Amino acid sequence: MRIVIAPDKFKGSLSASEAASAMADGVRLAGVGADIDVCPMADGGEGTIEAVVANIGADQRQAKVRGPLPGQEVLANWAYVHKNIGSAESGLIVTGETTAVLEMSQASGFCLVPEDRRDPMTTTTFGTGQLIAAAMDAGCNQVIVGIGGSATVDGGTGLAEALGYKFLDDRGNVLPGQGSSLGLIRKIDTSGRDPRIVSTRFLVASDVDSPLTGAQGAARVFGPQKGASPEQVDELDRGLANLGRLIEEQLGVEVLDLPGSGAAGGLGAGLAAFCGATIASGVELVAAITGLASRIKGADLVLTGEGSYDSQTARGKTPAGVAAIAKEAGVPAIVVAGRIAQETAFAGLTSFCVLPGPVSLEEAMENARGFVVTGTARLIRLIAAFLASS
Amino acid sequence: MRIVIAPDKFKGSLSASEAASAMADGVRLAGVGADIDVCPMADGGEGTIEAVVANIGADQRQAKVRGPLPGQEVLANWAYVHKNIGSAESGLIVTGETTAVLEMSQASGFCLVPEDRRDPMTTTTFGTGQLIAAAMDAGCNQVIVGIGGSATVDGGTGLAEALGYKFLDDRGNVLPGQGSSLGLIRKIDTSGRDPRIVSTRFLVASDVDSPLTGAQGAARVFGPQKGASPEQVDELDRGLANLGRLIEEQLGVEVLDLPGSGAAGGLGAGLAAFCGATIASGVELVAAITGLASRIKGADLVLTGEGSYDSQTARGKTPAGVAAIAKEAGVPAIVVAGRIAQETAFAGLTSFCVLPGPVSLEEAMENARGFVVTGTARLIRLIAAFLASS
Repeated sequence: MRIVIAPDKFKGSLSASEAASAMADGVRLAGVGADIDVCPMADGGEGTIEAVVANIGADQRQAKVRGPLPGQEVLANWAYVHKNIGSAESGLIVTGETTAVLEMSQASGFCLVPEDRRDPMTTTTFGTGQLIAAAMDAGCNQVIVGIGGSATVDGGTGLAEALGYKFLDDRGNVLPGQGSSLGLIRKIDTSGRDPRIVSTRFLVASDVDSPLTGAQGAARVFGPQKGASPEQVDELDRGLANLGRLIEEQLGVEVLDLPGSGAAGGLGAGLAAFCGATIASGVELVAAITGLASRIKGADLVLTGEGSYDSQTARGKTPAGVAAIAKEAGVPAIVVAGRIAQETAFAGLTSFCVLPGPVSLEEAMENARGFVVTGTARLIRLIAAFLASS
Repeated sequence: MRIVIAPDKFKGSLSASEAASAMADGVRLAGVGADIDVCPMADGGEGTIEAVVANIGADQRQAKVRGPLPGQEVLANWAYVHKNIGSAESGLIVTGETTAVLEMSQASGFCLVPEDRRDPMTTTTFGTGQLIAAAMDAGCNQVIVGIGGSATVDGGTGLAEALGYKFLDDRGNVLPGQGSSLGLIRKIDTSGRDPRIVSTRFLVASDVDSPLTGAQGAARVFGPQKGASPEQVDELDRGLANLGRLIEEQLGVEVLDLPGSGAAGGLGAGLAAFCGATIASGVELVAAITGLASRIKGADLVLTGEGSYDSQTARGKTPAGVAAIAKEAGVPAIVVAGRIAQETAFAGLTSFCVLPGPVSLEEAMENARGFVVTGTARLIRLIAAFLASS
């Protein structure tokens, strides 16, 4: 029995590597003599660097950059990969490059903003632009940017600013790259942009395929949780529409109808427009980097998972992506989770809750590793018992 | 896919019939088109009558009898079965009899005693003896007594008293049938016993195989939870030993080394001695009555279950008995539970917890039906997904 273990993080309790290790221990505890292949996964959100490093090894580097809040400075991690990565057949990754793997959340993430300082009008992706500059400084000619977990709705204007772009209002004044500027921009000045951008290949690892504007857009769907009032949501939505139009008219890049352009407060559109990035499914990109498809081929079972398997999961999150790859290979996949939301239990993927009985959320989070180990063991024994007699 | 659903009750939340119905709904919700055979089970404890009635139909009758406490009167249910029951091959049930199915807990149960009145020195099985008399009055010549959930440690002396036996002390005084009398008995007077006992076949449905006395005996193991102090535990253990010796010497019935003689505070020994009863595994007896073995033959899956699957389960409780029958037939069995204790998860049967995430015990109990339905559905989908690709 060959089992591929490819979970995402269990948010708030286990990293993807920790979750995968706990699941592997569970398989061993079940005592069925399985051959285990551990492949921690991610979808472009927090944990993407960790998953890449765990799978293929990489230099972990740090850069001091601007945080999302005015005047904030943060130390952001990124990964430098100096070897062939990815599978040729996926077409997503160019092997033979020197690749940087970045997470926007390291520089401009929601996790960096205290709850009482959430403000999508003034937060910026400037630091993520600085991270890209650092990667290019280090000689990387392929940059993968994971864009989950943003604190911003600046359409990537902050990032562009850090790379030498200027955004001008109707009087020619330079606007800061932040949400409140979006509606005021009349001209995008590309004259000062970093020339290395052109010779660098950019890939965006996104876990959502939201459009830039409208009911499913960056402002309406994610604005409120980033601290936007209803009026600010309207203003940001109009601002993103203005930016999108200017990008299409002045830069010739189509972003208004581009799936994923609304990811990370419009950073998807910004990276496409200002860096020429290709927006890809985060989980597919990480799968390409880790060679997941070829590892799943011929396996008997794929265990994926995450802390809470809910309605967001189906929209491009790790377990859905891993399950799709498993399905392609004809291998059954099971989502191992600490919680399975009602709405996903029968509409979505095959799932298994690791908890052995009534426990509080605190206890479930605190003892997550133990529950994942024993839960996975019970699952494997259940499957083994069934296979033995069928 | 043919699935036999044979759970015990989920104590405190669902009867065996309710649990089986919820599990059947779960199988249907999974949408795999399974053929379902519902067989609510019991092991001689509370719920035995209900399971028998649910499976084979029976007249439900009531008798006004003494309760376990002095002066207490209770209305006890029993089942009158006027048709062939049981399978010939089991040898346990004589078909063609008129059978009564009794639960000692209906007359002498722990559930009838308020917590502050627990007292194994004065509680009595007298009412269970009255139930037997009522069954014989009704013309039953086969009596099955389920003996789980007792409040008593009287060695069945109360029951015997109700059937005309007398227990005399060293002065020839008649002692009441209760725990405090056990050490004082010197003579068992059988002269007044109900003559119908001899022509009636008695079967004890027991869920424990405890001996009468000693470290694993009726007083030491179950005395404390019935309200016995350490001194009383000693006194009761010595009393049961005295009774056991007198039974062997004066009645010629071997009870001291008889497995199950310690069940229900020594009522196992009492029924063997005073009624000539055969002590049998409760779950095997109920399985014989319901024809479970032949229903399992050729099935693809057996779902059993109970509220909490813990270390007691393995000692003759329903899920263990059902799983043993399934194993005999080469059919996989899964214990569906609300809680799986750590000590059973890997040493025991294949088990599945129905909860979908962190919930309190109260919520789990209150919404037990819903959790069993959705949990069973997830389980069946998991199995189906695996079978489809293997």
